[in-house]
Amino acid sequence: MTATNGNRSGRRPGRSGTREAILDAARVRFGEVGFDKASIRSIATAASVDPALVHHYFGTKQELFTAALEFPIDPQVVLTQIADAPLDQLGETIVRAVLTVWDTPIGVQAVAAFRTLIASGDPALVRAFMLEIVLKDVRARVDSPPGSGTKRSVLAASQLAGLLVTRKILQIEPIASTPIEELVATVGPTLQRYLTGDLPGA
Amino acid sequence: MTATNGNRSGRRPGRSGTREAILDAARVRFGEVGFDKASIRSIATAASVDPALVHHYFGTKQELFTAALEFPIDPQVVLTQIADAPLDQLGETIVRAVLTVWDTPIGVQAVAAFRTLIASGDPALVRAFMLEIVLKDVRARVDSPPGSGTKRSVLAASQLAGLLVTRKILQIEPIASTPIEELVATVGPTLQRYLTGDLPGA
Repeated sequence: MTATNGNRSGRRPGRSGTREAILDAARVRFGEVGFDKASIRSIATAASVDPALVHHYFGTKQELFTAALEFPIDPQVVLTQIADAPLDQLGETIVRAVLTVWDTPIGVQAVAAFRTLIASGDPALVRAFMLEIVLKDVRARVDSPPGSGTKRSVLAASQLAGLLVTRKILQIEPIASTPIEELVATVGPTLQRYLTGDLPGA
Repeated sequence: MTATNGNRSGRRPGRSGTREAILDAARVRFGEVGFDKASIRSIATAASVDPALVHHYFGTKQELFTAALEFPIDPQVVLTQIADAPLDQLGETIVRAVLTVWDTPIGVQAVAAFRTLIASGDPALVRAFMLEIVLKDVRARVDSPPGSGTKRSVLAASQLAGLLVTRKILQIEPIASTPIEELVATVGPTLQRYLTGDLPGA
């Protein structure tokens, strides 16, 4: 969620200016050094506010990042569903979880946000969001041989991004209306091979 | 190519207005009825010009379509390379041809055009472009069992679209700089399975 914490009454003018200043500083910082290395403190300093105010407005650093990206859903909701999947069912579990969330009301907003990010988002910000939040847990689980985890997870992300483009953005039939479980059986093996199969150069 | 035929000298004012009127009519018509069913004659009528003028300005119907989409490359250039590939090498041939053209100067423009189409293009126009031009030949070749060709070719397109997003638009490493032949060996089998393998529901 893009948290808008705090009540609106009794605040002095300038609050929304402060909020925007924090978001601007966060976008710059996350884009420059990535999610892990950007501290709430450094963002607060750049925005000339107290770090406590950043937490007050936005919650955790990850919540601040999704707010900075104007991304309407906390990726953790999907990542939690994937975390418990056995390694040999990771491909189909990811396809099922992602396709299911796309069809929810908040998923529709997420699809729209991704469309905007593809079109005009800061590539450095989007890369950090993908690598350090969306793909982080999976990448660690599939890092075999060591060092191959990033390539494996980005390949999996490429197939999901393409499904997003064809099914939800361009809405090309029959993929736009193929039942989720059929796509799980069709595309799941692709992700499974990318994540745990023998790959050239991996 | 978005042809701009005809010499610029000695024409009366209004030429560029006529050209735009033809393109506008083409966008409406292709979006409404698709590429195959939209005739040059009906587009000319909608633009209140003679059909010969449409041919004079834009060449063939396919050239008119790529001009209407503001797409900088004639897809035929790539499709010709793919047409001669044996069926069992279709996957890797397509990946190689598409990745190679993306790295050419005109391919860079095509990537930018696709980014715009994904972000703000008329989905009906883009769908018609994909189904009736880009995927047409391949779809006919992989239509086994009969009726499965569209699903097969759209699945293949989904993986290519995702590769476009990750490699060229978001430029996520290591996929952004993986050598073409390694990606051919990695992603080619995905396309091959979609195009000729056993698929659920196909």
